[in-house]
Amino acid sequence: MGILIKNTLAVLPQGDGYAAARHDIYVDGTDIAGIDAAPAGFEATSEIDGSNRLAIPGLINAHTHTYMSMMRNVADDLSFTDWLFGTIEPIEDRLEPEDSYWASLLSQIEMIRSGTTCFNDQQMHIGQTTRAVRESGMRAVICRGLVGSAYDESDYRIAEALRERDDFADCDRLTFRLGPHAPYSCGPDYLRLVADVAKREGMGIHIHIAEGQVESDNMWRDHHCTPVEYVRDAGIFDVPTIAAHCIRVSEGDRAILAENGVSVVTNPASNMKLGNGFAPVPEMMAAGINVCLGTDGAASNNAQNMFREMGLVALIHKGTHDTPQCVSATETLAMATRNGAVALGLPTGSIEVGKKADLVLLDLDAPSLTPLNNPVAALAYSANGSEVTDVIIDGREVLRNRELLTIDEARVRHEIARICTRLGLA
Amino acid sequence: MGILIKNTLAVLPQGDGYAAARHDIYVDGTDIAGIDAAPAGFEATSEIDGSNRLAIPGLINAHTHTYMSMMRNVADDLSFTDWLFGTIEPIEDRLEPEDSYWASLLSQIEMIRSGTTCFNDQQMHIGQTTRAVRESGMRAVICRGLVGSAYDESDYRIAEALRERDDFADCDRLTFRLGPHAPYSCGPDYLRLVADVAKREGMGIHIHIAEGQVESDNMWRDHHCTPVEYVRDAGIFDVPTIAAHCIRVSEGDRAILAENGVSVVTNPASNMKLGNGFAPVPEMMAAGINVCLGTDGAASNNAQNMFREMGLVALIHKGTHDTPQCVSATETLAMATRNGAVALGLPTGSIEVGKKADLVLLDLDAPSLTPLNNPVAALAYSANGSEVTDVIIDGREVLRNRELLTIDEARVRHEIARICTRLGLA
Repeated sequence: MGILIKNTLAVLPQGDGYAAARHDIYVDGTDIAGIDAAPAGFEATSEIDGSNRLAIPGLINAHTHTYMSMMRNVADDLSFTDWLFGTIEPIEDRLEPEDSYWASLLSQIEMIRSGTTCFNDQQMHIGQTTRAVRESGMRAVICRGLVGSAYDESDYRIAEALRERDDFADCDRLTFRLGPHAPYSCGPDYLRLVADVAKREGMGIHIHIAEGQVESDNMWRDHHCTPVEYVRDAGIFDVPTIAAHCIRVSEGDRAILAENGVSVVTNPASNMKLGNGFAPVPEMMAAGINVCLGTDGAASNNAQNMFREMGLVALIHKGTHDTPQCVSATETLAMATRNGAVALGLPTGSIEVGKKADLVLLDLDAPSLTPLNNPVAALAYSANGSEVTDVIIDGREVLRNRELLTIDEARVRHEIARICTRLGLA
Repeated sequence: MGILIKNTLAVLPQGDGYAAARHDIYVDGTDIAGIDAAPAGFEATSEIDGSNRLAIPGLINAHTHTYMSMMRNVADDLSFTDWLFGTIEPIEDRLEPEDSYWASLLSQIEMIRSGTTCFNDQQMHIGQTTRAVRESGMRAVICRGLVGSAYDESDYRIAEALRERDDFADCDRLTFRLGPHAPYSCGPDYLRLVADVAKREGMGIHIHIAEGQVESDNMWRDHHCTPVEYVRDAGIFDVPTIAAHCIRVSEGDRAILAENGVSVVTNPASNMKLGNGFAPVPEMMAAGINVCLGTDGAASNNAQNMFREMGLVALIHKGTHDTPQCVSATETLAMATRNGAVALGLPTGSIEVGKKADLVLLDLDAPSLTPLNNPVAALAYSANGSEVTDVIIDGREVLRNRELLTIDEARVRHEIARICTRLGLA
């Protein structure tokens, strides 16, 4: 099965940056098999006229909780405590496992339609999300949320995580990580257990670190260290780790993250919305940390749109640092694509021969892209995601001329309305 | 001519906030003539099924330069000096008057499609913009940009501004203000002249104030006062004034703005993008200043999408103030609608009988609005503008089912491409 995207304006990697030019892109099987030259024996089963399209690598949402989309706009402008303990957790307690399936599909509809091809998810009902991913056609890293205190080899959550991984071993688009929730919800012995299991099983880890000041204050009071040190001391950084947030990280913390090759996911909308401030993104990049980008869940964003997140990360640090020369458009696009691929250890995130065919086409007639002038700047500063017309994931057309081919959207809306009614949200 | 929007979920004012409920909205002539009750003698020439639509007041972009859209994405990640003097001004020097017509139409396409019905524009070629507004169907306040130093009654710019106002007196959707550019580009005598002319002619004023630190530093060095004091002392605040930016405004400055009834337009994207930081929006609101919202021109934004701006203003101050309870969704919507109407002195900005029929409908099936849960929060935190399906301005359908009825979009793209080629941008 082959797809030929003819004569498209494609954003290709060039050194540390990007160069946009007209190209023919050949997709064979699941891979980008040729640029301007057909691979041997190539046969196009589908040909896309790219002449009025901007082709970019699919965006990678490196931190989200897709099961939360039914909680969109239910708890806004509240203190973190009222938000989490007063509103979100009481709703979560009433969720049924299948709710996560429909909510994850809803999140995936929003992500696909706004150009995201891959996401890194953390939640409890991973079986429901994996099922949704199998149907949607997206690429995903599924991380079983874990909380605990003891070093208990029989921990049911970890057992579930390993079982799910085995159950879905047939789907190449899925990989699995362990998701210890956060330093404040996992004791040191439990983190040590998670690190040992991850090492033994060859799995990566996805954890929240240093999201708010209270977390740092309590950590200092109880353990006389920073959240980063606490997690490192438990051995977590001995396996490939993705750390979400990292807002309150000192220069010493940043050195630890860099030395240990920890990738950091910044989530600007969520961090601002919950009053947690601005992550030191320019300082983390300067320390050599691989920084990527995520939306966080829809309960604290309230969108699953990576273009919105790119616009934020490209702007807010210019504001906090009083200079326009801070987090460039090129760095922004890299955060949303290749840095995410590096963090997740996946062969995607750029338009190059041999990479997975995770591709997004944007309508060059969209008012927001007229005139285009500088394609990379346009992606960071002008686009809002509605320009996306076509999405190819793992070599398969998932969105074609704005028509979503894999998910029954009306059915998802119907089920979400039913769930919201049951939860008393609508 | 009457339009009936049947059974729509409408966001109506309720005290200082909003309440959303199902309503029938009757548009008669240019006005909202009835809610749930047809006005006497009403005859619907058009009926819109609102059952799957969210109806909101048209957004008001209270500060922009629509002629700049061909300069989108040409000068990014540059210092303010390199941006303005190294790139933007050399391009501006090569603009021909008619370029402003096409660029303004392009900006208006993007604005209409993302739910903006009214804008406040400052530029030099106001005849071209007024011509574009007459065709597009938008509501606009046109402000002739003015720079100078002497008190010279024969100033050709002011004469032009008054002539344009008279030439377009037949178009109710257009009003005119004088646009003295900024304290750093207008001498005190010239500002005094502008204030006197505005008083005599019964016109309002639109001026940039306190956009960057350099402006404040130079003002102190040269005049031993703040930019706000300088403008006040020239008599500008004796007429209704809209001040764009107001980033570097002290507590004393804020008191002056409040006392004089000056409306402030905050432009978060542009302010961050040019490295000018964050305006003290919560502090200005607390001082009793009417704060409204704008995009600024496409050369420093780089979009003309008020949903993007609403998302920014609702988030960034939560970030700078480390609290989620800062600039609420309700305050955000008010800034983008009724506060803008107050600033411009126009009977629009809310869905109320007797107001101008400037209305926007959004698709409730859009993934970003699913589930809706809280409509006002959805507008501030979830929507990106692509949900807009219908736009009515001054009682006239301008966008119907995403089809733009007033502007030939392909022609505008063609002309913009031609202009960019001539300017060496494309």
